[in-house]
Amino acid sequence: MPQTTPVIALHGGAGTILKSNMTPELEAAYHAALRTCLEAGLAVLRNGGTSLDAVTASVVELEDNPLFNAGRGAVYTTDATHEMDAAIMNGATRDCGAISGICGPRHPILAARAVMEKTEHVFLAGDGARRFCETADLEMQDAEWFGTEQRLKALKAEMERRRSGLADDGDPARKHGTVGAVALDRFGHLAAATSTGGMTAKTPGRVGDSPVIGAGTWADDATAAISATGHGEYFIRQVVGHEIDARMRWAGQDLGTASGSVVSELGVMGGSGGLICVDAKGNIALPFNSPGMYRAWCGKDGVVHTAIYRD
Amino acid sequence: MPQTTPVIALHGGAGTILKSNMTPELEAAYHAALRTCLEAGLAVLRNGGTSLDAVTASVVELEDNPLFNAGRGAVYTTDATHEMDAAIMNGATRDCGAISGICGPRHPILAARAVMEKTEHVFLAGDGARRFCETADLEMQDAEWFGTEQRLKALKAEMERRRSGLADDGDPARKHGTVGAVALDRFGHLAAATSTGGMTAKTPGRVGDSPVIGAGTWADDATAAISATGHGEYFIRQVVGHEIDARMRWAGQDLGTASGSVVSELGVMGGSGGLICVDAKGNIALPFNSPGMYRAWCGKDGVVHTAIYRD
Repeated sequence: MPQTTPVIALHGGAGTILKSNMTPELEAAYHAALRTCLEAGLAVLRNGGTSLDAVTASVVELEDNPLFNAGRGAVYTTDATHEMDAAIMNGATRDCGAISGICGPRHPILAARAVMEKTEHVFLAGDGARRFCETADLEMQDAEWFGTEQRLKALKAEMERRRSGLADDGDPARKHGTVGAVALDRFGHLAAATSTGGMTAKTPGRVGDSPVIGAGTWADDATAAISATGHGEYFIRQVVGHEIDARMRWAGQDLGTASGSVVSELGVMGGSGGLICVDAKGNIALPFNSPGMYRAWCGKDGVVHTAIYRD
Repeated sequence: MPQTTPVIALHGGAGTILKSNMTPELEAAYHAALRTCLEAGLAVLRNGGTSLDAVTASVVELEDNPLFNAGRGAVYTTDATHEMDAAIMNGATRDCGAISGICGPRHPILAARAVMEKTEHVFLAGDGARRFCETADLEMQDAEWFGTEQRLKALKAEMERRRSGLADDGDPARKHGTVGAVALDRFGHLAAATSTGGMTAKTPGRVGDSPVIGAGTWADDATAAISATGHGEYFIRQVVGHEIDARMRWAGQDLGTASGSVVSELGVMGGSGGLICVDAKGNIALPFNSPGMYRAWCGKDGVVHTAIYRD
């Protein structure tokens, strides 16, 4: 069996805090969190585990950290509820699982994985999805467990802004945050996982790109594993993940060219955000058109990197 | 403005009744229904209307006809409820709207169109989607209105089969039915619409390919308008609509080659079904790998055709 050097990358959302609002302490906390979450997946890979288990491990850590908009720390809908979405895809088989509109499982990514592994379906949403979670042997938490002071403040500020008719302050942190991971394991297999609380003050029932296979989440050993973060409606209309796949497969583009051009075109349309991707050779690309994207990666050189803004 | 000859095609699902169970009376009823539904959209086009209005008009007719699994005549979930999905896409702008898991609007396709036209979102599911429908000025019906004796019988037979552990009888009519329409208007614009009750005895909350933009529904003036019908999980994993688009755009394939090869590859994977598509030159392709697909079309020659089996 060929031994590939394992590679992993993750994002904590393209909706970074405006640089003007960032403090050195908070910035350090983000870098430390990104490193910890990356190392969770990296440890799986270095112990000979699969890319599927590695992206799961990293997203589980990201979901538990209230700094990121997924799992604990998920944003609120206009009803002040949480509705979480997640998806996972195995590049070796194109098996996938997605779930939308749930609040219950501590780890929505494990709910998505249960859809993939325990049902004949690939996508469950709403009430039925919540009922499935109760039978899927997942750790459950009360709605309060997911909430944080900071997210509630963001909801109130956004509702107040809408009531008063004030212009958007352009803070991307309120608009979109998502977490995700992509990995290549030593067996040459790719996997991708994405999890999110959605947009602050979203309409209940809104499905973003994260659980839409081909849009926010995609993996195929023949091309790449991709996890996106951004203004989901644009990412759905561009079928972002599958579009990168298609440019690699049908136009012979490399990972950097395909992913970079797709993210640029999103920007031209008004779709802000970014994505992380890795191909079967272990190349990594982390393009974004927003002011920043929380991200961490460990490529073929084996060195862990973390970054927030463009530099 | 260039005047293109308008073209339209529709399907009433690839889950046709087994030829052995078909009677001459029922077959005649299907052909008549397919013609009526096609003519609804064709009239819009011939009166100078848009492809978006034409596919809406045809799908509205298909939804009202209990012969087809969408709107009235939708199949039942394991809970003996209806959960309907629909999506619509405008090839001129890539605007789109999708809805999943609803029971209320007489015409789910109008609910999908309302998501596109009245919200900043593209996809709503579950409770939130149902609540949106109540505010969207749509004609609503009680759950009983959608039910038919025949669909209830199909649910009971399937539940009985599962209880008794009998093998599947291979009747595709129980597995998947969907309706959809694609059109090219005189302005050269494409549109696609899809609506479905899903699979008989599906898990509540299951989302199939119909409302997944890029999978069961796709339209882009640069390539084609596509509406799929079949075993949705496979169609999601292959991102069927967008894959045909990608082969046309990036590999220079024509509509027939791209759609035919995608449907063949689905068959190899075990994904039964088919799709209807039209390109910006007015070419139509109606490939399927199942025993039949209810379909009707009117191409550049202006003649209405209807068909069920491979004949």
